[in-house]
Amino acid sequence: MSHLKGLDKIVSLCKSRGFIYQSSEIYGGLAAAYDYGPLGVELKRKLNQEWWKAMTQRHDNIVGLDAAILMHPKVWKASGHVDSFNDPMIDDKQSKMRYRADMLIEDYILTLRNKGKDDKADELQHLLDTAGTRKSMAEDLYDIIMQEEIKSPDSGAFDWTDVRQFNLMFKTNFGATSKEEDEGVYLRPETAQGIFVNFTNVVNTSRQQVPFGIAQIGKAFRNEVVARQFVFRMREFEQMEMQYFIEPDADMETYQNWLDERFAWHQSIGIRKSKLRIADHPADKLAHYAKAAADIQYHFPIGWQEVEGVHNRTDFDLSQHQEFSGKKMEYFNPHTQKRFIPYVIETSVGLDRCFLMVLSDAYREEEVDAGNGKTEVRNVLKLHPKLAPITAGIFPLVKKPELMEVADKIKAELSSDYKVQYDEKGSIGKRYRRLDEAGTPFCITVDFDGLEDQTVTIRHRDTMAQERVGLDKIDQVIRDGIKNWSPEE
Amino acid sequence: MSHLKGLDKIVSLCKSRGFIYQSSEIYGGLAAAYDYGPLGVELKRKLNQEWWKAMTQRHDNIVGLDAAILMHPKVWKASGHVDSFNDPMIDDKQSKMRYRADMLIEDYILTLRNKGKDDKADELQHLLDTAGTRKSMAEDLYDIIMQEEIKSPDSGAFDWTDVRQFNLMFKTNFGATSKEEDEGVYLRPETAQGIFVNFTNVVNTSRQQVPFGIAQIGKAFRNEVVARQFVFRMREFEQMEMQYFIEPDADMETYQNWLDERFAWHQSIGIRKSKLRIADHPADKLAHYAKAAADIQYHFPIGWQEVEGVHNRTDFDLSQHQEFSGKKMEYFNPHTQKRFIPYVIETSVGLDRCFLMVLSDAYREEEVDAGNGKTEVRNVLKLHPKLAPITAGIFPLVKKPELMEVADKIKAELSSDYKVQYDEKGSIGKRYRRLDEAGTPFCITVDFDGLEDQTVTIRHRDTMAQERVGLDKIDQVIRDGIKNWSPEE
Repeated sequence: MSHLKGLDKIVSLCKSRGFIYQSSEIYGGLAAAYDYGPLGVELKRKLNQEWWKAMTQRHDNIVGLDAAILMHPKVWKASGHVDSFNDPMIDDKQSKMRYRADMLIEDYILTLRNKGKDDKADELQHLLDTAGTRKSMAEDLYDIIMQEEIKSPDSGAFDWTDVRQFNLMFKTNFGATSKEEDEGVYLRPETAQGIFVNFTNVVNTSRQQVPFGIAQIGKAFRNEVVARQFVFRMREFEQMEMQYFIEPDADMETYQNWLDERFAWHQSIGIRKSKLRIADHPADKLAHYAKAAADIQYHFPIGWQEVEGVHNRTDFDLSQHQEFSGKKMEYFNPHTQKRFIPYVIETSVGLDRCFLMVLSDAYREEEVDAGNGKTEVRNVLKLHPKLAPITAGIFPLVKKPELMEVADKIKAELSSDYKVQYDEKGSIGKRYRRLDEAGTPFCITVDFDGLEDQTVTIRHRDTMAQERVGLDKIDQVIRDGIKNWSPEE
Repeated sequence: MSHLKGLDKIVSLCKSRGFIYQSSEIYGGLAAAYDYGPLGVELKRKLNQEWWKAMTQRHDNIVGLDAAILMHPKVWKASGHVDSFNDPMIDDKQSKMRYRADMLIEDYILTLRNKGKDDKADELQHLLDTAGTRKSMAEDLYDIIMQEEIKSPDSGAFDWTDVRQFNLMFKTNFGATSKEEDEGVYLRPETAQGIFVNFTNVVNTSRQQVPFGIAQIGKAFRNEVVARQFVFRMREFEQMEMQYFIEPDADMETYQNWLDERFAWHQSIGIRKSKLRIADHPADKLAHYAKAAADIQYHFPIGWQEVEGVHNRTDFDLSQHQEFSGKKMEYFNPHTQKRFIPYVIETSVGLDRCFLMVLSDAYREEEVDAGNGKTEVRNVLKLHPKLAPITAGIFPLVKKPELMEVADKIKAELSSDYKVQYDEKGSIGKRYRRLDEAGTPFCITVDFDGLEDQTVTIRHRDTMAQERVGLDKIDQVIRDGIKNWSPEE
């Protein structure tokens, strides 16, 4: 894969080793949807589990929740998604291709700059920045496209529909009475609202007192217009979100604490600190519900990109639901005897992006001794061992019944705690390489010497060092190896 | 809850203790959708994990997969769902209520029998059994309703629409070009097809040879007309499915082996054997794709109900996908040098039903000594300890700093492996009762004697027996308690 660059290497590895496949591939694929293959699903489950433990197990004031994907349509009225979760779209009537009007204009401005026409570019940039102030957003964008006669990037035609606001939520018909049918429900565009609408349920049934958190992992769906860059921007994706309910005046301190804790979590799953950074959202770019917000970004092969967001959502969401549902969303503090709508600090990770971060950070191409005086390139995933899809490879040195029998026994013992893989094909070197690419931290080889003295050889993925270990010590070596691991810079 | 009967007790416990809430409850709820609360999500995750381990970890020839919910529409053409996953529906024009036409007729037949009109009932039953043979299914059902002048159960009117075939799949618009928009995609009505369409991907990337299996856990969606009985029949539900790919002539033996293994699995999660049974599908009731099928049923408070299905699906699905996609779905056996489309043995559990089975089996009302010469009723969930949402309660006997400090230390230590709950409120007896209802197997109390000799009291949920345990032995008592547990009859 050394001829590929940047993200393409990771994409190629994902496909060839069964981490991620294109969805419905035999039918030509479904745009911006992906399936996790055998290695991918194990890694994804382990990330899910690490986050869940860090939230609900390590904090006894954080409880879990798993709300349905389909929710009552009024939820999305209250949250603002029905009215404002839109992109301004325009269609090329000739090619039938659809574009985001603002991005079309941005691309056009870039072209002007490349031609040295900076004055014109500045003028248009100003028009774009103030779109929505003259007429509606859609009309202002349309006017710019008309005025500049911006052409369709694919057909070259200048034959546009109007600009229309296109809602990013997927809608479906729900229910089986003709009454229900009229309404329609949305696939949730974020998991957070499932937590907010259950706030009082959790307060009433879980004995938690403010401050406390509710954590949830689940699918969300957005009909992204420009879905691209592999699993970065998918139409179906998975979120790991925690909403922390607090006294209003504790908001900025709690926000900072969670930002720090979440930044540390990414290191706890083995990500190099040098590849992580925090980017604050400037005050004038905050979402309508946020008082403060920051991204935790990772330095991907395509540049710095958001992996997680930490937000001070104030009492916006609970207040909206109180207004739209007519149900009180207040909390009574028995110590201060005060009743109030809590503020919310949110931490929100994209599980799929997190997955891609882990692979990007772990993937290395190393020049190693090929044994014949030459060197060769070893592709290896230096994953944190606790995340490895397959924890151990188990090899009989050659296909002899007495070796296979011992290997089988080791397999049976280890598989009560770990996913392991038995492999008897090819040279030991080749078996090592296959599992290096799968990120397997330990390879256990059973040989004839070992039959005599009840030992095996354990080879370590990162250092390629081999050690002789008694059969009764295998488990301990794996445990220590997981516990004591840290990433190489 | 002793005044409630059957399933209502479990439903009531689910609501009051935060196992399951109605979805979007503050907005009046969404029919046949439910949210898992703090205790529920922990139990559900543990069931998920037990199944996953039993499949992909204990068998090194079973690999995992996590396919997208949204799939290419042709998948459902090939599987038969677009054309035949229908219910025949009829609308009462006056009330706008919709009914399943065949169930309307069945109810009418039942009324006739109750009136002693057996001859007439037999005649109609014959017409119903042969519906679809005279005209279409929809027309034949319509004719019966017209001929008998069957009235609407809610309005009493005889003012019907035609009978129409109503597809049970949810459809949504997908994509953002006007081309894509026309097509629409379905929310998958079963997870199995995600496995079939990835069959060759897995063969090519995972080094598995027939026989091997692919396991998947995920959401599926069906627009059930009669969605009812709590989480038994939901519109959004979760499946745990494994497809085992085999040589065609190994089918019936493999089918029997998986049926046995799955029956044993339900016992391994603590279900009483006496409450489980296998029900074979008679040959004339088999689904169109099946050569053999059986249900694993549990004796719920509402009677024997399916929890899992084991099916011999033959080569039906892979053959269909080969035909519709034009891609070969064959496997080449390197030993026999034969190329063939594998047969498939499927095991399919409903995770939500499995959840309800576990609660139903664990829930007990016991008469216990109230301490004052009287007895009281103790509600307790005798869950397998490995499934308990909260593994241990940790109590300081009274709110004294020196006791709370030790309790905090125990909490910090145990919470790296278990979800624990600290509780300092109310009498020890009340704290026990609260965690009995949550199914917590161990309660650890820190008292003044213990400060002196470094011990705590561990109280066991099932027997209510208490034992004095050294601080350094707590972890071992929990481990042994989980390992050695078996259900009481």
